[in-house]
Amino acid sequence: MSPPSATTDAPDTPSVWWRWLLIVGIAAGILAVGAPEGITPQGWRLFAIFIATIVGSILRPAPAGAVVLFGVCAIAVTGTMTPADSLKGYSDPLVWLVLCAFFISRGVMKTGLGERIAYLFIRALGRRSIGLVYALVGTDTVLASILPSNSARAGGVIFPITRSLAHAYDSHPGVTARRLGAYLMVAVYQCDVIACAMFLTGQASNVLIARFAQEVSGVEVSYTTWMVAGIVPGIVSLLVVPLILFRLYPPEVTHTPHATELARSALDRMGKPSRGEWMMLLVFVVVALLWMTTRWHGINYAVVALLGVCFLLVTSVLEWDDVLADRAAWDVFIWYGGLVRMAEALGETGITKRFAEVAASVTVGWAWGAALIALVLVYFYAHYAFASITAHATAMFTPFLVVVLAAGAPPKLAVLALAYASNLDAALTHYGTTTAPIYFGARYVSQREWWRLGLITSLVTLAIWGILGPLWWRLLGMWG
Amino acid sequence: MSPPSATTDAPDTPSVWWRWLLIVGIAAGILAVGAPEGITPQGWRLFAIFIATIVGSILRPAPAGAVVLFGVCAIAVTGTMTPADSLKGYSDPLVWLVLCAFFISRGVMKTGLGERIAYLFIRALGRRSIGLVYALVGTDTVLASILPSNSARAGGVIFPITRSLAHAYDSHPGVTARRLGAYLMVAVYQCDVIACAMFLTGQASNVLIARFAQEVSGVEVSYTTWMVAGIVPGIVSLLVVPLILFRLYPPEVTHTPHATELARSALDRMGKPSRGEWMMLLVFVVVALLWMTTRWHGINYAVVALLGVCFLLVTSVLEWDDVLADRAAWDVFIWYGGLVRMAEALGETGITKRFAEVAASVTVGWAWGAALIALVLVYFYAHYAFASITAHATAMFTPFLVVVLAAGAPPKLAVLALAYASNLDAALTHYGTTTAPIYFGARYVSQREWWRLGLITSLVTLAIWGILGPLWWRLLGMWG
Repeated sequence: MSPPSATTDAPDTPSVWWRWLLIVGIAAGILAVGAPEGITPQGWRLFAIFIATIVGSILRPAPAGAVVLFGVCAIAVTGTMTPADSLKGYSDPLVWLVLCAFFISRGVMKTGLGERIAYLFIRALGRRSIGLVYALVGTDTVLASILPSNSARAGGVIFPITRSLAHAYDSHPGVTARRLGAYLMVAVYQCDVIACAMFLTGQASNVLIARFAQEVSGVEVSYTTWMVAGIVPGIVSLLVVPLILFRLYPPEVTHTPHATELARSALDRMGKPSRGEWMMLLVFVVVALLWMTTRWHGINYAVVALLGVCFLLVTSVLEWDDVLADRAAWDVFIWYGGLVRMAEALGETGITKRFAEVAASVTVGWAWGAALIALVLVYFYAHYAFASITAHATAMFTPFLVVVLAAGAPPKLAVLALAYASNLDAALTHYGTTTAPIYFGARYVSQREWWRLGLITSLVTLAIWGILGPLWWRLLGMWG
Repeated sequence: MSPPSATTDAPDTPSVWWRWLLIVGIAAGILAVGAPEGITPQGWRLFAIFIATIVGSILRPAPAGAVVLFGVCAIAVTGTMTPADSLKGYSDPLVWLVLCAFFISRGVMKTGLGERIAYLFIRALGRRSIGLVYALVGTDTVLASILPSNSARAGGVIFPITRSLAHAYDSHPGVTARRLGAYLMVAVYQCDVIACAMFLTGQASNVLIARFAQEVSGVEVSYTTWMVAGIVPGIVSLLVVPLILFRLYPPEVTHTPHATELARSALDRMGKPSRGEWMMLLVFVVVALLWMTTRWHGINYAVVALLGVCFLLVTSVLEWDDVLADRAAWDVFIWYGGLVRMAEALGETGITKRFAEVAASVTVGWAWGAALIALVLVYFYAHYAFASITAHATAMFTPFLVVVLAAGAPPKLAVLALAYASNLDAALTHYGTTTAPIYFGARYVSQREWWRLGLITSLVTLAIWGILGPLWWRLLGMWG
């Protein structure tokens, strides 16, 4: 399957108009088929627009955010929902949670706190090249516990340090790539994918996945549930994957004493943590603690994040302009707010339920275990065809979950398996998620190698999360 | 009264902390007084937060948008409303109308359409300095019919041309200021204030004012109502004000043939309108027509604006990044969404109603005409103390309207009088609305002159809108 282009072509390119035509054609086709019995015409129109939006965010004749905005506009213009109703996602607390967490990410980058954490890790662990990977990945994982902006975290904070470490050992794209840089790029990226999977805040669409899961199965995946269920397979993967890549794709330089010196001098240069860094650290710790303890105080996730942002603004760690100028945050806000509302409304139409009934009749007689394994594998490797976790999850998570549930799988097990798979499958390609083009784009690794190592890593993580995961979740009493 | 600073001081300045203290103190004071009978504790808490937010957006210890976000956060954290409810303004179609209109503004600037319109006007009318003002103001007024971003319109499009016309006649701040520049700056600014008043989309807070009006009085001011009621006094003011300023503050250069040449050569340089300009013009005309004909097709204002934005995106007149990078738009989105919801919820608490009852007992026996005139004058000149139309209207529009209505004034007349006054009062100072510091800041005019001319203009516009306005509205059957 050829990868869909992650970038947008110029509007004059004929291919763009063909893609638009295909998208509109699909919507028209669905409308022409007509609503099945029991589904209102409104509901069916919504379904057509939703499918067109998903196809659009895969084909990308325009950036994904714009495509979703077109979907919202289509819903309002056609009177499928009232204007207020079609915009309702933009006041959804979950959408604001993600928006605020993006603003907090900006503070972590701006104050230099992220960089400092990375250098502290490197000073402690960086004497060997594998230790460097653990140091970088440790930083990424710590940040992933509250920062869903994967590109700010792994792209903005970790990537520049990774590259400068490679440069420090005179490893550049080309003949010296394998000296150190190639290993670092592959290993850090593969572990970033694992960090994405480990937290509800690992990347932006996990919150969307949790929402989908709740709508279909009623299973509520809280911040804590996601983290506790993910921590054992997550940490094992983070330890094992760099080792395996070290075997398969060893760097020529294995001892890196220079890196710790580098970290030491960078820390010296940074001096004592600034007031801004302390404030940032405080927000980081308090927000994470409040998210973990929701059960006791009941303060909504979004309100906690909003409090964090307000604190950073009042103390001038963030300027108001930092918030307004955060294009990545506003991008997520638009697509996420649109999709959340569409998915929610689609649930209310009864189409998902109808689909479940049909699925149930198909999977009659299957052992649920076989169904779960088969469907998770198909779901996972379908990611070769997706340039975004969000597009993939939006298109496939709900129907796959419905089928697995219809086959009789325990709801929580099914939700967790598909949720983690939604992230881990980004290992496969150099366009699997937003950070892939960044690490691949450093040009240390050929596409062939990247895909080969991605495929092997996927087998490793599938083994770990597929065997250790269910055992751990059973131990936690989540199923069985 | 000393003007509140429009800029934000550094957070370390003691004055900032004093302002915060004052704001929190006011909220605490209101809470300490306790809810009057018939008002729930929740309602009273909302009132305290609302008043603190208004005081905050006047004192500005942080930018106005941030202050509103703090208010929203306070409402959610204190459990005054549910998180979803406190964020509800962000899915309000009116808020999206303003957001989308800002994006359309960006297209007008980006394609050069605004500039072209200005040069066409100058080529036609610019042979005399007073004609230049009419040309610039004509452009501004045409744009105001759909673009509520006053700073994009009068600041971004008109101001650079105004300044370059002054430069063309070698008029610079200092000894040559009075040659041409000083007159242009004062006259264009004063007429921009009138253009703001003439349309529901004249500047961002008119939509908010319309919402306030509807909540208190039930009077719905549609796009068409606002425009039709404003067009006669508006056009008369636009014709008279430049003339009066020409008498009081004449430029030395009164014949400006060079300006028309300048416009001609600028138009030559621009060549034929680009595809983008044609698309932009199309959107401009279609959006305005759809807004004027809402009564017949019933398509919501916001949906029309959203359609316009989507069309500009699909045709690549606007790039997605233009939308994401529009900080002014996101700023308005945050403060406007927050205020809309607070004001709406406050209406539901019954506090406004209670205030109306008290006001009614005070104004018993007043002739409603006297009450209306007195209160509009107080409202108008109170703007000396405000650096923003929004802050002023948010603080004073609702209570003043309530009192005027309690005195027995016809609702529609009272609403229109206060709505137009909310805009026209920006004439008074060099910080009266966002464009004032731009035109004043060009340093052609001393503060003393600016205030003197502003005061005189205010008397002229008050006379025109105060006499001609009610007559015209009576003719239209809006009252009496």
